[in-house]
Amino acid sequence: MTPEQQLTELKKGIVDLISEKELLVKLKKSQKEGKPLIIKAGFDPNRPDLHLGHTVLINKMKQFQDFGHRVCFLIGDFTAMIGDPTGKNETRPPMTEDMVAENAKTYARQVYKILDSNSTAVTYNSEWFKKFTASDFIRLSSQYTVARMLERDDFSKRFKNHEPIAIHEFLYPLVQGHDSVAMQADVELGGTDQLFNMLVGRDLQKDASQEQQVVMTVPILEGLDGIQKMSKSLDNYIAVEDSPREMFGKTMRVSDELMLKYYELLTDISVADLEALRVEVQSGKKHPRQVKVDLAKFLVERFHSKEAADSAEVEFDRIFVNKGLPDDMPEKDVSPSEKGVCVFLKDLDLVSSNSEARRLIEGHAVEIRGEKVKDPKMTLVLSAGDEFIIKVGKKKFAKVRVRG
Amino acid sequence: MTPEQQLTELKKGIVDLISEKELLVKLKKSQKEGKPLIIKAGFDPNRPDLHLGHTVLINKMKQFQDFGHRVCFLIGDFTAMIGDPTGKNETRPPMTEDMVAENAKTYARQVYKILDSNSTAVTYNSEWFKKFTASDFIRLSSQYTVARMLERDDFSKRFKNHEPIAIHEFLYPLVQGHDSVAMQADVELGGTDQLFNMLVGRDLQKDASQEQQVVMTVPILEGLDGIQKMSKSLDNYIAVEDSPREMFGKTMRVSDELMLKYYELLTDISVADLEALRVEVQSGKKHPRQVKVDLAKFLVERFHSKEAADSAEVEFDRIFVNKGLPDDMPEKDVSPSEKGVCVFLKDLDLVSSNSEARRLIEGHAVEIRGEKVKDPKMTLVLSAGDEFIIKVGKKKFAKVRVRG
Repeated sequence: MTPEQQLTELKKGIVDLISEKELLVKLKKSQKEGKPLIIKAGFDPNRPDLHLGHTVLINKMKQFQDFGHRVCFLIGDFTAMIGDPTGKNETRPPMTEDMVAENAKTYARQVYKILDSNSTAVTYNSEWFKKFTASDFIRLSSQYTVARMLERDDFSKRFKNHEPIAIHEFLYPLVQGHDSVAMQADVELGGTDQLFNMLVGRDLQKDASQEQQVVMTVPILEGLDGIQKMSKSLDNYIAVEDSPREMFGKTMRVSDELMLKYYELLTDISVADLEALRVEVQSGKKHPRQVKVDLAKFLVERFHSKEAADSAEVEFDRIFVNKGLPDDMPEKDVSPSEKGVCVFLKDLDLVSSNSEARRLIEGHAVEIRGEKVKDPKMTLVLSAGDEFIIKVGKKKFAKVRVRG
Repeated sequence: MTPEQQLTELKKGIVDLISEKELLVKLKKSQKEGKPLIIKAGFDPNRPDLHLGHTVLINKMKQFQDFGHRVCFLIGDFTAMIGDPTGKNETRPPMTEDMVAENAKTYARQVYKILDSNSTAVTYNSEWFKKFTASDFIRLSSQYTVARMLERDDFSKRFKNHEPIAIHEFLYPLVQGHDSVAMQADVELGGTDQLFNMLVGRDLQKDASQEQQVVMTVPILEGLDGIQKMSKSLDNYIAVEDSPREMFGKTMRVSDELMLKYYELLTDISVADLEALRVEVQSGKKHPRQVKVDLAKFLVERFHSKEAADSAEVEFDRIFVNKGLPDDMPEKDVSPSEKGVCVFLKDLDLVSSNSEARRLIEGHAVEIRGEKVKDPKMTLVLSAGDEFIIKVGKKKFAKVRVRG
C-alpha cells in the first residue's frame, strides 16, 4: 500500500489527528527507509479486563501492525506501583510487581486475540522511571507551566469549581509525556480523553530535540444502551472474554444505529464498504437483523473462532427465534449458583410451591433453553453472564440473566 | 531564664510568629524535659557572601542558642545541585558537591563570628533527598493542592499577570517543607519572604503526624539608603567580611532613624534598653553621632575584634572629623587598581595635567587620608571597598570610594 492509501485507512474512525501532514511525512519516510514507525499506546495495569471499548484502540494498533509498523503496548506500571498517593482512594492500593506482571499476562491474553504477538512489543514505563531521581523529576517538571497544565479540560473545570487538584496530578501528564521521549514514539494512540496528555508528549519530545509524535485519538465507544460510554461499572459492555453466547446475544440487542457505529469502530471494514452498508440498510436492501447477525458472528469469530460464531448463531436462533415468545417477557436477574430446578422456579415466582413445580415438570410443561425439563431433581448451573428463557405451561415466560 | 522571659526576648524584632502560644508550650516542655528545641534556618549555598541583612536571622539563631537550644544551619544543596532546571538562567548553573562544600566553609567562617561553632549543627538537605525516588516525589507532591500553592503571594501575582510559573517551582516549597519533617524541626526561622514556604513545613509535619514547627519571620533589613532592602546588587550593604574601616565608615553614613532600626535588628540590645535609647536620642539626652559610633564599634567588634573597633574609630576621626571638610564634597567611585599619584589626581580632574600635580605635591599642597603626600612618584594602592578623602590646595576636595 502506498503511504497515501495507508493514511486513508488509518484515518478511519479517528477523532483527532495532529497532524495529518506529519503522519504522511512519517509514513513516506518509513516506506522509503524501510524502517517501521514506533506506535505507542498506553494501558493502565489496574484494570486488565478489556471490553470492546478498548478494542477500538487495539484495532487501530492492528492496522498499523498490518502496514508493517512496530506496535508498542506500554504498561504504565510506574504510577500503578505508587497507587493513590493521597491514600484517599482505598480502591486503588499500590500494585506490587507481581500484580503488574499478572495483569500484564491477562492483557496479553486478550490483546493477542487481535494483535500479532510476534510483532508486538510490550514495554513497562518503570523501566526508565525506576532510574529516575528526584532531581530528574524536578527537571522534568520544569518543562511545563502551571498555566498550560490548567488548560487541560478536567483541570480547568475543577480549578474553576474550586475542587482540589493535588500537585502530583500535574506530574502524571509529564510522566506519560516522558514515556514518549523514552520510547522515541512516532505515533501515540489513545481515547479522546487522552488528547492533552499526548500533546504533552509532543512538547517534551521537542524539548528533547526529537521528532514530535503524531497524536491520534479514537472515540469513546458507546455501550449497549447507545447513550453512555461502554464501561464495566455501567453494565453496558461486551467483554473481550465474554462467552460466544453472551457476545452474540449482547450484540443482537443493540439498536440499528449503534450497530453501524460498531461496524465502523470494531471491524476492519473499509471506509467505502461501510458507506455502502449504510446505504443498503437505509434503503431496505439489507435487513438490519441480518446485518446485526453478521456483526455478532464477526465479533465472536474475532475473539473466539469461526466454529464458535456458527454455533452461537444456531443456539441464538434455537432459543430466541420463531418460538412465538412474547415481546414483554419479564426479565429476572439472578446471581451465579447451582440450584435444584424446582427451588429455582419457586424463587422466580413462576410457581407457588415446590410441589407445583414438580407436578408441572412431570407433566412436561416446563421448558428451559428451548428444551423440556424431564427430571424434577435436575440441578441448574447458573454461570455468570448466562442468559436463557424459561417457559412454564403455555403462558408463563421469563428471561433469566445471570449477573456477571 | 523562665520560658516566659525567653519568649519576650525571642519576640524582639520578629514580624510573624505562628504561634506565640505554641512557642511558649514548646519552651516550657523543653525546660521541663531538659531537651533543647531544634531550630531550623535554611541557607542557599549559591550565595555564601553574607551581609548584615542575613545576620538579622543569625542573631535570632544566636538567641535560641544562648537559651540552650539546638541551632541547625541547613544548607539547601539539593536544589542548588540541580541549578536552574529550565536552563534559562545561565547565572545559576548546577553546583557540584565540591562547590557546595567550599561555599559551606565560607558560610561557616562568617556565621561562627556570631554563633558558637560547638553547638551549631550544619546539615545538608541532600542527605535525605539523595535517597528520594521519583515515587517519593510524587507522594510528596500529592500532599498539597494547586490552589493552595497559588495562594503564595508571588505565585498568585504571576498567575494573575499571565507570567509563566514552571511546575517545578511548586515543588520547591514542598522540598523546603519536607526538610522540616526530616529534621523534626521545632522552630523554623526565615525572612518574611519565606513565610509561605515555612507554613508548608507545618502542614507536611502535620501529615507526618509530627508536632508542628513554630514559624518565625524576621524583617528584611533596609540597606544603607534606608529605602531598599540590603543587597549586594544594590550596593547598599555592609558585608560580614567588610574590613573594620569599611564597616565603621558605612555605619556612620546611615540616617538616625535607620540607626535605631539597626540597633533593634543587629545588636543584642534588650527590648527595654532599646526603648530607653530611643527616648534618649529623641529627647537630645544622647547625641545621635555618639550612638552611631557605639553601633559602628559594636558591629566591628562583633565581626572583627575590640582592638579593630577602637582603631577604626581613631582612623575615622583622624580622616573625617574636625578637618573643616565641606559637607558637599564630590564623591568619586573608582575601580580597584594601583596607580601613580599624579595620574590619579589627573584622572579625578583635581588637576589639569601631570605636571600640575607634580608641582602641587612638591609644594606640599596635596593631602590623602589626612596625610601630606611628599613623593610625586608614590604609588597609590586602591583596594576594593576602600574609602578616603583627597585634598588639593585649600579648596579642592574629593571623597574617593573604591568599588567592591
